Amino acid sequence: MEIFEVNILGCGSAKPTLRHLPSSQIVNIRGKYYMIDCGEGTQIQMQKMRLPMARVGHIFISHNHGDHVFGLPGLISTMALLGRTADLHIHGPQQLQEFLDNIIRIYCEGITFQIIFHPIDTRVHNIIYNDRSVTVWSIPLQHRVPCSGFLFRETPPLPHIRREMIDAFNIPFSQINNIKAGASWTTEDGTVIPNERLVTPAEKARSYAYCSDTAYLPKLKEILQDVTLLYHEATYPEEFAKRAKETQHSTASQAASIAKEAKAEKLCIGHFSARIKNEEELLAEATSIFPNTTLAREGLTLQL
Amino acid sequence: MEIFEVNILGCGSAKPTLRHLPSSQIVNIRGKYYMIDCGEGTQIQMQKMRLPMARVGHIFISHNHGDHVFGLPGLISTMALLGRTADLHIHGPQQLQEFLDNIIRIYCEGITFQIIFHPIDTRVHNIIYNDRSVTVWSIPLQHRVPCSGFLFRETPPLPHIRREMIDAFNIPFSQINNIKAGASWTTEDGTVIPNERLVTPAEKARSYAYCSDTAYLPKLKEILQDVTLLYHEATYPEEFAKRAKETQHSTASQAASIAKEAKAEKLCIGHFSARIKNEEELLAEATSIFPNTTLAREGLTLQL
Repeated sequence: MEIFEVNILGCGSAKPTLRHLPSSQIVNIRGKYYMIDCGEGTQIQMQKMRLPMARVGHIFISHNHGDHVFGLPGLISTMALLGRTADLHIHGPQQLQEFLDNIIRIYCEGITFQIIFHPIDTRVHNIIYNDRSVTVWSIPLQHRVPCSGFLFRETPPLPHIRREMIDAFNIPFSQINNIKAGASWTTEDGTVIPNERLVTPAEKARSYAYCSDTAYLPKLKEILQDVTLLYHEATYPEEFAKRAKETQHSTASQAASIAKEAKAEKLCIGHFSARIKNEEELLAEATSIFPNTTLAREGLTLQL
Repeated sequence: MEIFEVNILGCGSAKPTLRHLPSSQIVNIRGKYYMIDCGEGTQIQMQKMRLPMARVGHIFISHNHGDHVFGLPGLISTMALLGRTADLHIHGPQQLQEFLDNIIRIYCEGITFQIIFHPIDTRVHNIIYNDRSVTVWSIPLQHRVPCSGFLFRETPPLPHIRREMIDAFNIPFSQINNIKAGASWTTEDGTVIPNERLVTPAEKARSYAYCSDTAYLPKLKEILQDVTLLYHEATYPEEFAKRAKETQHSTASQAASIAKEAKAEKLCIGHFSARIKNEEELLAEATSIFPNTTLAREGLTLQL
């Protein structure tokens, strides 16, 4: 299977601790990097995890809070220092634009690449980006400021050619793509070999959803139905449910309920409050509802 | 002696490496913290070095390059999260103000403390701050943008009272401060005890100078005369002297020459280029000119 993995660079919340960095992830799909959020220290963490900056073409910012964006100035400056020429696309709520414009105007004189900002309408579930490998959808979240999650849907893989059938019927190389795309083959004597004899089925298309920061939103289960991996914030344990509601965050139980209702394959919880010294408590809470749960941590790579 | 120490939080240059963080220091004078520069990651490094943020009242920014300022947004946000109420004073070249104003406007709604910006005239050697313990002077440096170094001069310590003389002459406690300030004492029979018999001399007032970033500026020796500790940038070894000149940085030899000419007691070199893999080379170069040289490193505390 082709690469589809999520690298956790930071999974803390706003108040910094020595246990966690603020939010940032790199989704690696077939060798291309899609960054999600960019808290302070992201560029250093990329170096630690040996994730080269040059591969990042698109950055998706969930919302305009410092712990999700304060790594951008340093990241952009370093890309400039490294002589980058490729465009850098930044997707985020409109609120982000002013900060970005200021950074570019004040610190990026003579910058050698274009930064293109794509505002996200955080109220709707829309396609915000697509390329050959992936389609990215916005996920309307509910937080103290306009906030969007992201759903990465891999382009459905093609079926696998059955080498022995190709050889048996002497099918020329030029026809391989057609057959992968569903074509049958007609032999010289006019026999039609149906496509399903020539291929084995493709792997199921995988998907990854990032939901942070958000209040508990049960209706997310619809958008997230059958997602392969769900990253959902779990800032607090259930005993802080009141505080979670006030600050528009979720508890570990709530994150697990979403995963269960959405029939996700796996759940990863993160965005841990600085108050929580023992995250195993969050894990226990989540797994009691949704067993296939992992705690996020800096340096973790999740394979889909 | 009272505390006067310099904590190195970061001593790398603009391009991040896994060996160094960008520039930041905390000068601790009698328990009050004065921050110099604030590169990305400074707030985390403060936690690692157990330097509480609440003690920082004044931040001195040398110049408006990202590797000296991109830690400010996170630092200020965290101070707000921690419920700070004390004023925060930021001293820096006028060019810094726009970035600060933007951060405050965009990210600091409802902030519970005042941020007061004090522009520095980077062309002159002036007093820019003083309190009971210290006087801070600007040092005009030469870089690609307006840039100021900082000279911290400890308020001259008072002489030490000779306990045995106080007892011998029955001098009341209320007179101690006068005597420390230079007064003599007249006994009941009219004998004048001169001040120098009542005290032992004070320690010499200490001073610390921060010179980064700057081209080689021989005339700095005048301002820096007899400084106790000089931190001088040494971005490159002498073999990169041409590049140092072009980018308005200094070599290790140049830093050492300044220390020698200024008759500094100690030199600490930093702001190492990402190109330099072996900093011992820089140290060897500097010590051949000025033996009492130390390499800066993250976590280092220098006692004056």
